[in-house]
Amino acid sequence: MKNISILGSTGSIGKQTLEIAREHPEKYKIVGLAVMNNIDELELQIEEFQPKLVTVFDEAKAKILASRIASKIKVYYGVEGLIEVASHQDNHMVINSVVGSIGVLPTIAAIKNKIDIGLANKETLVAAGKLVLEECKKNNVSIIPVDSEHSAIFQCIQGETDENIAKIILTASGGPFRNWSYQDIENAAAKEALKHPNWSMGKKISIDSATLMNKGLEVIEARWLFGIDVEKIEVVIHPQSVIHSMVETIDASIIGQLGVPDMKLPIQYALSYPKRIKGKVKKLDFKRYNTLTFEEPDFVRFPCLELAYAAMKIGGTMPCVLNTANEVLVDYYLKDKIKFYDIAKYIEKIMGAHNAFHYNNVEELLALEEWVKSWLLDELR
Amino acid sequence: MKNISILGSTGSIGKQTLEIAREHPEKYKIVGLAVMNNIDELELQIEEFQPKLVTVFDEAKAKILASRIASKIKVYYGVEGLIEVASHQDNHMVINSVVGSIGVLPTIAAIKNKIDIGLANKETLVAAGKLVLEECKKNNVSIIPVDSEHSAIFQCIQGETDENIAKIILTASGGPFRNWSYQDIENAAAKEALKHPNWSMGKKISIDSATLMNKGLEVIEARWLFGIDVEKIEVVIHPQSVIHSMVETIDASIIGQLGVPDMKLPIQYALSYPKRIKGKVKKLDFKRYNTLTFEEPDFVRFPCLELAYAAMKIGGTMPCVLNTANEVLVDYYLKDKIKFYDIAKYIEKIMGAHNAFHYNNVEELLALEEWVKSWLLDELR
Repeated sequence: MKNISILGSTGSIGKQTLEIAREHPEKYKIVGLAVMNNIDELELQIEEFQPKLVTVFDEAKAKILASRIASKIKVYYGVEGLIEVASHQDNHMVINSVVGSIGVLPTIAAIKNKIDIGLANKETLVAAGKLVLEECKKNNVSIIPVDSEHSAIFQCIQGETDENIAKIILTASGGPFRNWSYQDIENAAAKEALKHPNWSMGKKISIDSATLMNKGLEVIEARWLFGIDVEKIEVVIHPQSVIHSMVETIDASIIGQLGVPDMKLPIQYALSYPKRIKGKVKKLDFKRYNTLTFEEPDFVRFPCLELAYAAMKIGGTMPCVLNTANEVLVDYYLKDKIKFYDIAKYIEKIMGAHNAFHYNNVEELLALEEWVKSWLLDELR
Repeated sequence: MKNISILGSTGSIGKQTLEIAREHPEKYKIVGLAVMNNIDELELQIEEFQPKLVTVFDEAKAKILASRIASKIKVYYGVEGLIEVASHQDNHMVINSVVGSIGVLPTIAAIKNKIDIGLANKETLVAAGKLVLEECKKNNVSIIPVDSEHSAIFQCIQGETDENIAKIILTASGGPFRNWSYQDIENAAAKEALKHPNWSMGKKISIDSATLMNKGLEVIEARWLFGIDVEKIEVVIHPQSVIHSMVETIDASIIGQLGVPDMKLPIQYALSYPKRIKGKVKKLDFKRYNTLTFEEPDFVRFPCLELAYAAMKIGGTMPCVLNTANEVLVDYYLKDKIKFYDIAKYIEKIMGAHNAFHYNNVEELLALEEWVKSWLLDELR
């Protein structure tokens, strides 16, 4: 029996994690659940999975929930609540599927308690990769990627030694604007950017897919997860999202992982690793997916991808600045306060304004995030 | 230093094996070389690689060679000669790249001397898979596949346990007649069948690629190499030959191996396994291979594929009969003595005339091969 807690249990990844737990009650037990504010759905989840503790990030909502449910289940709130759920001593694994760099502190807390991480929250590694990996090493904890691309790479490198890996090839669907002109993208409203061709996802990640910042963040995530130089991570546009990513070995062989575009596979793999278990993922049918195509990414129409590479090459605090600025700017874009290319424009601007340095603790990063937010507030006033 | 002998050193696989030995003289030493009759090229190879012994299958040619070269290198001939080279005590590995079931005896002799096999000669496993695998087990010897498809599968299953494997997906280019009508194929001359779109290969394997018998033999080979039921081996036509084959795991994930169509990669992998080494294989460029397509095989235009499945399902001696008949009939077709579909027609006929039984030794198989040859001689008189 594997004891699991989920950060973000009412989100897309969280709900699918619970579906897998429902399919395999003999394999997985839910210890804790954490949500932002959707207490109605959390209440149903509590009823079904009977966790030991839950967290509602929003304090007021947490109190409403606490008044509704039986007292035997503890209800926490805020970042402290996320940390309570993530670091609970009964956990064998925490599925971190919150959105944004809010995932950093609970992830580190779990690692310090020697709890493995199933990581869907890429911002955690983008913002604080160095710290998180240091803690993993210190505590002999594994991070199993839940992102489909990183899960693919993780599957491909099983049985390969580090010296064999020459290159990581991250595939990207290209997002909803893959075939749009610069001018059309420039004027695209958020609601158009939200229409992803292959994946049904949350709002923030959907915008990141439209800007290709999502792929940029994944480049940075891969750099930390697989300990590989960013120069050896390549992005290839593959609109069908069938090859989830690939690894090139030093002898020019490429190992790739394929499947239907369904997040349930990487989630289940993270839960079952190092084993595989039968699940409800549909098999890939080559009659349906009979043509797979590849294109080079266009850095002109999608400048965010290049900015992410640049931030990682600079290193230190720069990816954290990029990531925080992106979180703020995507929110602005979703509220129609800025235009599409303003996201890249202001990220570039703040990267120019920031002198990257090597951070040593989370507090430095949190302070930096505050600086980014106030800088952007000033700039966009 | 790994000591290598090559059966078929003047063939396509043999020459490429020697190229790799030439590129890595610090890693590979050539112990023995065996050829059918090309003594001129063998003489050059002897000069360069200084093997301890050589074999020329053709006795008369062997004697000519012996008279030409320095006496310190022993020259053998016939099947006995193949066995001498294959089983030499200095060998760490034998690359078996002869054509046809003549490879069986030397392979078994090498295995009995605890020498690993790099197997490009698929007929060995098709004819005598049960015996060969039993000997491997008894002597703790590994067969590393050199066929690009089986090498791909072998690479894909590294790090996976047997229970994880749900299906093997063998890719097939479809051969030169992939888009030809039944009528056009029916009347195709051998010289047209020899024009393979992606691979430059010997004559016999080129015809086998045109009939898809090559893929059928590979299905049987995969059954033995990977210990998997033939029902779990699927063939998918993939004309670009970029995905060399795939493995589907029980959770509906697919791991595939990709690369440029170049036999040097699987040869080198067989030599370097379990390591990988840098070589001269070109990297796959997705700008060039920007579209990969998949089709179902057509069992009507390519009946040999279905016959191979049928032979393996019947089991016992039936694959040996199929294979021997195919060798004879391909030879007839190459000499324009029969038409394209006569290959399948007579294979089906002799399969109907043969009552399959479980064999226990090579002698039974050799006797059966003689029966097949004389049966076909009668039939085609």
